[in-house]
Amino acid sequence: MKETAVLLIDCPDQKGLVARVSTLLFQMGANILHADQHQDHALGLFFMRVEWSLGGNGDTGDAAFDIGGFEKAFAPIAAELNMRWKLYTATRRPRVALFCSQYLHCMVDLLYRWRSGELDCEIPLIISNHTAVAPLAAYYDIPFLHTPVTADTRHTAEQLQLSLLRQHNIDLVVLARYMQILSADFVAPYPAAIINVHHSFLPAFIGARPYHAAHARGVKLIGATSHYVTAELDNGPIIEQDVARVSHRDQVEDLVDRGRDLERVVLSRAVRWHLERRILCYGNKTVVFD
Amino acid sequence: MKETAVLLIDCPDQKGLVARVSTLLFQMGANILHADQHQDHALGLFFMRVEWSLGGNGDTGDAAFDIGGFEKAFAPIAAELNMRWKLYTATRRPRVALFCSQYLHCMVDLLYRWRSGELDCEIPLIISNHTAVAPLAAYYDIPFLHTPVTADTRHTAEQLQLSLLRQHNIDLVVLARYMQILSADFVAPYPAAIINVHHSFLPAFIGARPYHAAHARGVKLIGATSHYVTAELDNGPIIEQDVARVSHRDQVEDLVDRGRDLERVVLSRAVRWHLERRILCYGNKTVVFD
Amino acid sequence: MKETAVLLIDCPDQKGLVARVSTLLFQMGANILHADQHQDHALGLFFMRVEWSLGGNGDTGDAAFDIGGFEKAFAPIAAELNMRWKLYTATRRPRVALFCSQYLHCMVDLLYRWRSGELDCEIPLIISNHTAVAPLAAYYDIPFLHTPVTADTRHTAEQLQLSLLRQHNIDLVVLARYMQILSADFVAPYPAAIINVHHSFLPAFIGARPYHAAHARGVKLIGATSHYVTAELDNGPIIEQDVARVSHRDQVEDLVDRGRDLERVVLSRAVRWHLERRILCYGNKTVVFD
Amino acid sequence: MKETAVLLIDCPDQKGLVARVSTLLFQMGANILHADQHQDHALGLFFMRVEWSLGGNGDTGDAAFDIGGFEKAFAPIAAELNMRWKLYTATRRPRVALFCSQYLHCMVDLLYRWRSGELDCEIPLIISNHTAVAPLAAYYDIPFLHTPVTADTRHTAEQLQLSLLRQHNIDLVVLARYMQILSADFVAPYPAAIINVHHSFLPAFIGARPYHAAHARGVKLIGATSHYVTAELDNGPIIEQDVARVSHRDQVEDLVDRGRDLERVVLSRAVRWHLERRILCYGNKTVVFD
Repeated sequence: MKETAVLLIDCPDQKGLVARVSTLLFQMGANILHADQHQDHALGLFFMRVEWSLGGNGDTGDAAFDIGGFEKAFAPIAAELNMRWKLYTATRRPRVALFCSQYLHCMVDLLYRWRSGELDCEIPLIISNHTAVAPLAAYYDIPFLHTPVTADTRHTAEQLQLSLLRQHNIDLVVLARYMQILSADFVAPYPAAIINVHHSFLPAFIGARPYHAAHARGVKLIGATSHYVTAELDNGPIIEQDVARVSHRDQVEDLVDRGRDLERVVLSRAVRWHLERRILCYGNKTVVFD
Repeated sequence: MKETAVLLIDCPDQKGLVARVSTLLFQMGANILHADQHQDHALGLFFMRVEWSLGGNGDTGDAAFDIGGFEKAFAPIAAELNMRWKLYTATRRPRVALFCSQYLHCMVDLLYRWRSGELDCEIPLIISNHTAVAPLAAYYDIPFLHTPVTADTRHTAEQLQLSLLRQHNIDLVVLARYMQILSADFVAPYPAAIINVHHSFLPAFIGARPYHAAHARGVKLIGATSHYVTAELDNGPIIEQDVARVSHRDQVEDLVDRGRDLERVVLSRAVRWHLERRILCYGNKTVVFD
Repeated sequence: MKETAVLLIDCPDQKGLVARVSTLLFQMGANILHADQHQDHALGLFFMRVEWSLGGNGDTGDAAFDIGGFEKAFAPIAAELNMRWKLYTATRRPRVALFCSQYLHCMVDLLYRWRSGELDCEIPLIISNHTAVAPLAAYYDIPFLHTPVTADTRHTAEQLQLSLLRQHNIDLVVLARYMQILSADFVAPYPAAIINVHHSFLPAFIGARPYHAAHARGVKLIGATSHYVTAELDNGPIIEQDVARVSHRDQVEDLVDRGRDLERVVLSRAVRWHLERRILCYGNKTVVFD
Repeated sequence: MKETAVLLIDCPDQKGLVARVSTLLFQMGANILHADQHQDHALGLFFMRVEWSLGGNGDTGDAAFDIGGFEKAFAPIAAELNMRWKLYTATRRPRVALFCSQYLHCMVDLLYRWRSGELDCEIPLIISNHTAVAPLAAYYDIPFLHTPVTADTRHTAEQLQLSLLRQHNIDLVVLARYMQILSADFVAPYPAAIINVHHSFLPAFIGARPYHAAHARGVKLIGATSHYVTAELDNGPIIEQDVARVSHRDQVEDLVDRGRDLERVVLSRAVRWHLERRILCYGNKTVVFD
C-alpha cells in the first residue's frame, strides 16, 4: 500500500483552476507524484487528478502531510469554484466483490493479479450462480457465496447478494463474466462502482451471444469492452476496449477462444485503473487519467 | 502484369475436391504459385483459390499453359461437383472507376498506389459530385466527370454515371469517401463489384456522422471498414477492418483526423485484394485468401 | 481429444505434390478437416499440413480411417518426392513439462488454459529452481520437482532434470519464465521441442533485463517473443511475437507489468500451435499454419 | 494558423513548479487550452507543456495576451528554478525542408497532409538525390533541388544543401526515405530538428536493408520508427514506432509493401507532433505530450 493521497476534481472550466489547486498543495508542502488535467472544450468542463505522497521522509526532512488540514483548506475553494471532488487516502484498501458464472478465465486472471500485488485491494467475497469457482475461492482463501438464480429467485438472490455487499462494506463489484442481468434496484446503490466485461466491441453486438452475432456479420476484428454498469443493458460508460483480428477460418468457437484473452485484459485494466482512482465519469463517458 | 491465371471455386463440401482440381492442373503441367482452400464446416461449403503461371519458360522447358484446354477440361468436372467458379487470366487488366466527394485522402492514396504499381489495374475514369478532385485527376491524366447530385438530380446523375461505367467497361467501382447513397438500381448491375469505405467499425455506427456517434458513446477505439456495397446501407459483406486507440482527450475532429489513416488503409487493402482475385463472397460474408 | 490425424510435410517444391497427396487421401476415403500448404519460392521449398478425421461415422457410413494402410502407401511416395514428413495421430496426448522460476504469471495462465481444455496435452511434471510454484502445482495435482541451480550445481541439476524428462516421456518442454540458461547438452535431445518466452521483441534486446534495455533506449512499443530454444541464446526460430504501446510516462516497472500480458499471450499461443501440430521449422524460421 | 503560444519546460524536479507557472499564467489572464506535465522520478526531472490562446475575444471580453510581458516576467522565475524553456508563438509558421530519394510514398503522404491543413508549416524546399520527385514538387508548386550524391560528391552536395537550408531559414528537415547517410557536420547545426524514418522496429535491424534482415530472422511483426537524427546512425531519440503482422507467407517484397504503410504513419505523426511543439528531448529519449 503506497502512502499517497489522490484528489479527483471535475467542474466547469474557468481560468486559474490549476493555479488555485497547485498553489494550495505547494503551500502545504505536498510532494506531488503525478498530476494530470483535462479540458473538454466542447462542454466547458475541467477534470483534474493529483496524487501526492502522505508519508514523511527522514532523508528529505519532509514531515507527514497534514491531510485533514488540506481537506479543511480545500473545501471552501472547491465550493467557490463549483467543484465536484473526491479525496482518497491510502489508509484503507478498497474492498472488492467478484461475481462470476461458470467461465473462470477472468477470475483466474484477476485473482492472480491480486495475489501478485498488481491489484491493490481486499477481496473479501466471491459470489456466483454456479459452483465452478468454489475450488479457486478456496485456493485463495476467500469466502464464496453460491446464489443460484432463476427467473423466480432473481429478486431474492439479489437481495441476499446486496445484504452481503453491505455487510462486507464492498466498494466495488466486478462482474467477471457473470452471465446474469442485474436489476435497476441492484445497480442503483453502486453508481460507477460495478464494472462489467462485455464480450464485444460495444456498441456493436449488445446483449446475448455477441460472438455468434459477430460471426454471422462476418466482422474481421472481434472485441471486448469493460464498462461501468448502469440500469441500461451494456450501455454504461466505457472504460476500456480492445480487439483481435479474426478471419473467415474462425468459427464461433474460435472467436470465443480468442475473445477470452481480450476479456481478461480489458477487465483487469479497468479494475486496476478504478482501484488507482484514475477514472472519472461524466455524462455517459469516462476520463481515464494516464 | 504477371502472366498468371487465378481459379476461384465455391461449392458444397465433399471428399476429393482438392484431388480432382490439383490432379487436372498437374496433368496439364501447371506451375502452381499459390493455392489455398477453406472449408466452412458449419455450412458444409468448400472454397478454393489456385494461382498458376501462364507463360512458358525457356530455362525449365515449360511451354505456355493451355488455358483454353484447361477451361474445356475443367467445365464438366465443375458441373459434376456443383461448383460455382471463375477463371481469371491476366490478358486484360481490370478496369476501375473511382468515385469521391470533397475529401481526397483516399483518392491521393489509391492513385499513388496505382502509379507505383501496387494496384494492378486500369483507371479510366474518376467521378465526383464535387470539383475538388479535378487537379489530382489532371495530374494523373485520368478523365474526370463532375456529376453534381441533389435530391432532384440523383436519378439523372446516376443514369449518367452508369452509362459512363458501361461505356468504359468498368469492372470495379471504388467509393473513396463518396458521400452519396447509391440507389438499388445503381448497385444491382455490380454485385460484389462496388467497394465502399465506411468510417466506423461496422456494425457499430451505421449511417451518417459515425465519428460524432463514436465520440458521443465514448468508445476507446475507433474503426474503419471496407465492404462490398449492397442495396442495404452499410450492410454488405465486410472485406477489411482496422481500429485505432483514442482517449478522452480526443474531440470529434481528432477522431476524424485519426480515422483518415484507417480509411486509407482498409480501403486500399480491399481494392488490392479484389484486384488480386483473393475475395470470395458467400452469404453476406467474405473469404479473403492470404 | 479429437480423433484426427495430422500430416506435416516439407520437401523441395515440384509440380504435382498436392495432387499426389490429396489423391492418396481421397482414395483411402479420408474426410479432410483442414489442409494448408505453403511454397517458399525463393528457396524452392514446399510445406503442407493436412488434418483429417480418424473415427468412423455411422451417420455418413464412413468407416474408421486405416491409418496403418495410409502410412504404408504414403512412405514410397514420400521417398520418391524427397519429403521429410511426420504423421501424428491422436492415440496419445503429447506430454509436456513446465519449467519456471519465481514469476508465475505464465504458469497460472498455461495451467488454467490446460484445465479448461484449451491446451490438449498431459502435464506430468513441473520443474523450478524456486519453490514459489509449489502451491499451484499442488492445486492442479501435478508432481513438482525443485532443482535449485547455482553455477556449481547447474550440470547436476540439468542431469537430474533430463532424467525426469526421459522417465516421464516428455515430448515438449515449456520454459514459462524459467530464468536459467540451458546448456547445449540439455537442448540437444529436444530439437524444436523446447519453447521459451523472451520478454522483448527479438532480435532487439537479447539477453538479460530486456525491459531495462528497452526503457533506456526509449522505445515506444515493447514486445515479447516465443521461440524454440537452440544452443544459441535467444536466437532460435521465432513462433510468435506481440507488442504493446508504452510512453515516456512508463518506468521500468510499468514495462514489466505491461510485458507480463504479452508474455502470457505469446507463450500460450506457441504452446497451443505446437500441440496442434501447426508449426514446421526450416532453417531458423517457422511456418505456422492457420 | 491557431493564435496560440506553447511553453515547453524541462528542469530538475522540485515542489511548486506547477504552482509557479500556472499562477503567473493566471495573473496575466491566459486562457489555457492544454496543459500537461511529466515527472521522471528516477532521474528527478520535470517536464511541462502549456498551450494558451493569444488572440483577444470580444465575446468574453478577453484582451489579446501580452506575450512580451509574459516572457519578461517568466525569465527570472525560470532562472531561479533552473529551467530550460522554449516559448513558441504562432506569429510565424515553422519552415520545413523535405528530403527524399526515389521512393515517394512518404512524400506523397506528407504533401497531401500539408495541403489539407493537417501539417501546419511552410514547405519552401524539396531536396532529392534523384529526380523522381520533380513532377510532385511541381504539382505542389514547391522549389525542388536535385543534388546527386556519390562518394566523391557527398561533401559538396551537403554543403550546397546546407546553404539552401540556411537561405530558406529552415527550422525542420524531414528525411522522407532519403537513402543517404548524413555526415556529422550536416547534423550538428540541427539538433532535434532533423526527423528520419527508419524502416524497422529500432533498435532491431539498424542500418541497410532492414526488411531483408527481418525476413532472414523470421520475425512475426515488422516495424517502422521515426526518430531525431544524431551523428550516430539510427540511434537518435525515438519519436514514434508502429508494427504490422507478417507471416511465413510474406516474402521480402511483401514486407517492403506492408512496411510502406507503417513508414507513412510513423513519419507523419512525428512531423505533426514536432510542429505542434509536443516533443521534448532529454538524454536520448523523447517526451511526447498528448
